[in-house]
Amino acid sequence: MLRGKEVSAGIASRLKAAVETLRFVPKLVFIRVGDDPASSAYVRSKQRLAERIGLLSEVLTLPSETSREQLSRYIHSLNEDAEVDGILIQLPLPSHLESGSLLAMIDPAKDVDGLHPMNVGLLWSGRWGLVPATPAGLIAILDHYQLPIEGRRVVIIGRSNLVGKPAAALFLRRDATVSIAHSRTQRLDAVVRQAEILISAVGKSHLITPEMVQPHAIVLDVGFSRKEGHIVGDVHPRVAEVADYLTPMPGGTGPVTVAMVIQNTIEAAKHRRGERG
Amino acid sequence: MLRGKEVSAGIASRLKAAVETLRFVPKLVFIRVGDDPASSAYVRSKQRLAERIGLLSEVLTLPSETSREQLSRYIHSLNEDAEVDGILIQLPLPSHLESGSLLAMIDPAKDVDGLHPMNVGLLWSGRWGLVPATPAGLIAILDHYQLPIEGRRVVIIGRSNLVGKPAAALFLRRDATVSIAHSRTQRLDAVVRQAEILISAVGKSHLITPEMVQPHAIVLDVGFSRKEGHIVGDVHPRVAEVADYLTPMPGGTGPVTVAMVIQNTIEAAKHRRGERG
Repeated sequence: MLRGKEVSAGIASRLKAAVETLRFVPKLVFIRVGDDPASSAYVRSKQRLAERIGLLSEVLTLPSETSREQLSRYIHSLNEDAEVDGILIQLPLPSHLESGSLLAMIDPAKDVDGLHPMNVGLLWSGRWGLVPATPAGLIAILDHYQLPIEGRRVVIIGRSNLVGKPAAALFLRRDATVSIAHSRTQRLDAVVRQAEILISAVGKSHLITPEMVQPHAIVLDVGFSRKEGHIVGDVHPRVAEVADYLTPMPGGTGPVTVAMVIQNTIEAAKHRRGERG
Repeated sequence: MLRGKEVSAGIASRLKAAVETLRFVPKLVFIRVGDDPASSAYVRSKQRLAERIGLLSEVLTLPSETSREQLSRYIHSLNEDAEVDGILIQLPLPSHLESGSLLAMIDPAKDVDGLHPMNVGLLWSGRWGLVPATPAGLIAILDHYQLPIEGRRVVIIGRSNLVGKPAAALFLRRDATVSIAHSRTQRLDAVVRQAEILISAVGKSHLITPEMVQPHAIVLDVGFSRKEGHIVGDVHPRVAEVADYLTPMPGGTGPVTVAMVIQNTIEAAKHRRGERG
């Protein structure tokens, strides 16, 4: 089992020590529109960790009927605020707000979700930028357990902007051979079977069954859905019988994502305030 | 055989007709530093096609000892020039000029090579932007011959910013299952064999032999190298005995790349001058 909480705790204590050496307190601002309970729980967990590590954080909660113009004014004022190091728009937004163009309004230097096109482009160009937290967390988990990535066949299921595509960039940068599968993939089981490292980020409960998985594979479960009131991953728990390593759900990739958001905020702060690591 | 010249001619006549309906003449400026003969031949072939299609073009030829500061001044003045629609820095640059940061100085709206991080990020975010010509040309070839992409297994060998990575984005957008292999890939032959559509963009003569290729595959050869004075592709000509479709080298993907640069210039011009098609 790849214990996300253990990895996250390790990162958190390293970050806490790093923050103590800074001459300023990094500040992270969350923008939350509407009152989706899952979103608000998720923001709370990020805020709790931010506080434990020694960051300032703030949540800007806006009513679900907030207009695009109002939201863009908030973003611009946070861009201008020299004390704000990270801006995070909690997704999903209500359907009348198109997220792509709003994310592109965030100053790329404060875009701790790494979703601004400029950061996406820097990532794919092999240059420095802020990287989405969930895929960065996957790398952190493997590195924590000293599982080599170089030369391994990595199969990523899902091609979202948040997970699948940036994960492809990061694993490619680490010299893996990367395949990206998705809803239009034919014979998914044959593709999955090639994976030495399998990443599932779909949100379909128990999509991945033991028969599909190569013996000794490493399986990272990112997707989740609700089933009879429980949170269930993309990966069937019995995959543990075939795989050498597996992240549990919950308690696997999720806690590491939260830690990487805080790490991004500290990175962004150092970079923007000119104390680059 | 997938005849690039035929595809290119089709695109060129469509573009010529499109340019005639415009109220302005799109202008493309090439920046060439140093006197690499291959580069200068390549710029000439692009200029010739630009002229035939009805574009204005100009070549700014700079001595190989040009400094970064001088080059950046040229880029900025072309950015400011309202008559210039496309700016193309011919690569490779002399070794003292770091291309990544110079490409990022081009106004993204004039970046007809699609290498500015902003355009790279828009591509990977599924939004409108200028797309690198070579991978766009690969899609154009398959579309010309009405070869379906959706759901096919595409293997791309090479992970350059110019070809491999943007090709992955474009084929993913067209619903292919995409794998990216490279110099650190283990058992390349097994990976290549899974390809229904194989793209080789490495520059290693005859890297791909008939034994590696799946029967009935479609093979697009982008890489080239010089061998005994001849231009030789990544793909051994005998692959034609196994594959259903193959691009020749030369005369395959190259001519289509040139046409796509011109198409990008027209797109950029319409977009920037507010006559979006």
